[in-house]
Amino acid sequence: MTVAIIGIGLIGGSMALALKAKGFASKIIGVEDNEEHGKTALHLHLVDEIARLDDAIKGADIIIVAVPVSAAEKMIAGILDKVKRRVVIDVGSTKSAICIEAAKSKNRGRFVATHPMWGTEFSGPQAAVTDAFIDKAVVICNREESDSDAVLLAENLYRLLGMHLLYMEATAHDLHAAYVSHIAHITSFALANTVLEKEREEYAIFEMASAGFESTVRLAKSNPAMWVPIFMQNKENVLDVLNEHISQLRKFKACLEKENYEYLEELMVNANKIKRIIK
Amino acid sequence: MTVAIIGIGLIGGSMALALKAKGFASKIIGVEDNEEHGKTALHLHLVDEIARLDDAIKGADIIIVAVPVSAAEKMIAGILDKVKRRVVIDVGSTKSAICIEAAKSKNRGRFVATHPMWGTEFSGPQAAVTDAFIDKAVVICNREESDSDAVLLAENLYRLLGMHLLYMEATAHDLHAAYVSHIAHITSFALANTVLEKEREEYAIFEMASAGFESTVRLAKSNPAMWVPIFMQNKENVLDVLNEHISQLRKFKACLEKENYEYLEELMVNANKIKRIIK
Repeated sequence: MTVAIIGIGLIGGSMALALKAKGFASKIIGVEDNEEHGKTALHLHLVDEIARLDDAIKGADIIIVAVPVSAAEKMIAGILDKVKRRVVIDVGSTKSAICIEAAKSKNRGRFVATHPMWGTEFSGPQAAVTDAFIDKAVVICNREESDSDAVLLAENLYRLLGMHLLYMEATAHDLHAAYVSHIAHITSFALANTVLEKEREEYAIFEMASAGFESTVRLAKSNPAMWVPIFMQNKENVLDVLNEHISQLRKFKACLEKENYEYLEELMVNANKIKRIIK
Repeated sequence: MTVAIIGIGLIGGSMALALKAKGFASKIIGVEDNEEHGKTALHLHLVDEIARLDDAIKGADIIIVAVPVSAAEKMIAGILDKVKRRVVIDVGSTKSAICIEAAKSKNRGRFVATHPMWGTEFSGPQAAVTDAFIDKAVVICNREESDSDAVLLAENLYRLLGMHLLYMEATAHDLHAAYVSHIAHITSFALANTVLEKEREEYAIFEMASAGFESTVRLAKSNPAMWVPIFMQNKENVLDVLNEHISQLRKFKACLEKENYEYLEELMVNANKIKRIIK
């Protein structure tokens, strides 16, 4: 099967590697605006060729959209208008906006909205990882708006990558994604800025940074070009959870200010419950 | 050399393993209030025997205090009063309070205040790790208040464990620790509570939690019995940095509310600078 991947970055590149390795794709056509990324993708054998968008759509059996969610939102209806039997899958971190745009095409049924729940703080084709998706979850949204053969193809593709399937409405997905992914990025970006603000005064502190700090601040290395559009599209949910997070931080602040260490301990004992969920 | 370790938890236990492995300690005497922990430490061969505090002090050449910082603060002067030539080292995450207490003993010179910058979210003797300290930093505080032979012994001990040495005033240490360690724990605890607050409505979100979320929330599993005393002792610094962190989060909030995505991107590009410091 020939697979076109639009956007050969971290996710598109990792998907290219996995689909080739699993024998799903006999040929991968990459579409990449960034000329350097295109060259790197060829050089790293992530793709067999780089083509223009229209040529890639024509030459492929399945089209995977792996560009930032703002770009995906803009291009999805145009891509769908050009396919008849072929299947179009997106892999973006927000799902409502793209589903609304996809619905504007007469070929909405050929589109499957998905979100493979994997990523790292790195970006670009050189960040692509084989076996990235194994044992991770993938969310398929608004399944009933897609043709059943298209859903089946997407399901088979993700099962082949070793993922387990979740089904959700796009609006529910975006709410949950705000909690389990987007807020973690904001806290991490803000934590980095908190510490960098201090660096002006004291450089030595960074010699002390330990593994705990590193893991908490890791996501602050993430690519703004990918994350600004996610926060834009998921603004309302992210604001909700951000408000909750600030209010949780204020509880810690109040405990310290009032020296209410019993309640501080309660807050931490409650937080420990996350052990039930995250190993 | 016989080493007494007071508190055989994550840090004391890991130190016991390393000092035995490196041949620094021929015998390790553990002191442990928690009877279960004492049994586990013996069972795991972290210590050769469990003794009462006074007997351990008498029988050891070097005494390592690895209890929660509130307990360490209370016991340090009493321990120092009982030693003459022997060296007492503490390994707590705050340094000002213990240095103030140690100064109340006539034997202050025998005490070396240190903070090996390593830890995990786990606790207790079963969490002890061999090779925990390799390539990590250890901060030695108020060196000039310690006898030079005592400092030399501590330096040799930590070099043997593969650590690199930093020297700092206790007050400076506590400020820096608030930035590179303590705040990361508070954000992680608060993030866990933010998400757990939501869990009441939606359990399914946890199926979606990905590696990014897990790394950001990891520290929320940390032991309150260890961390409440740290926050108590370092209250002022932690409040300073917590206020800064809340104000950084408010900037993200304002960007979203005002749809000021240029500034949002600026904030994230600035946060990316953490790459310079954390690999």
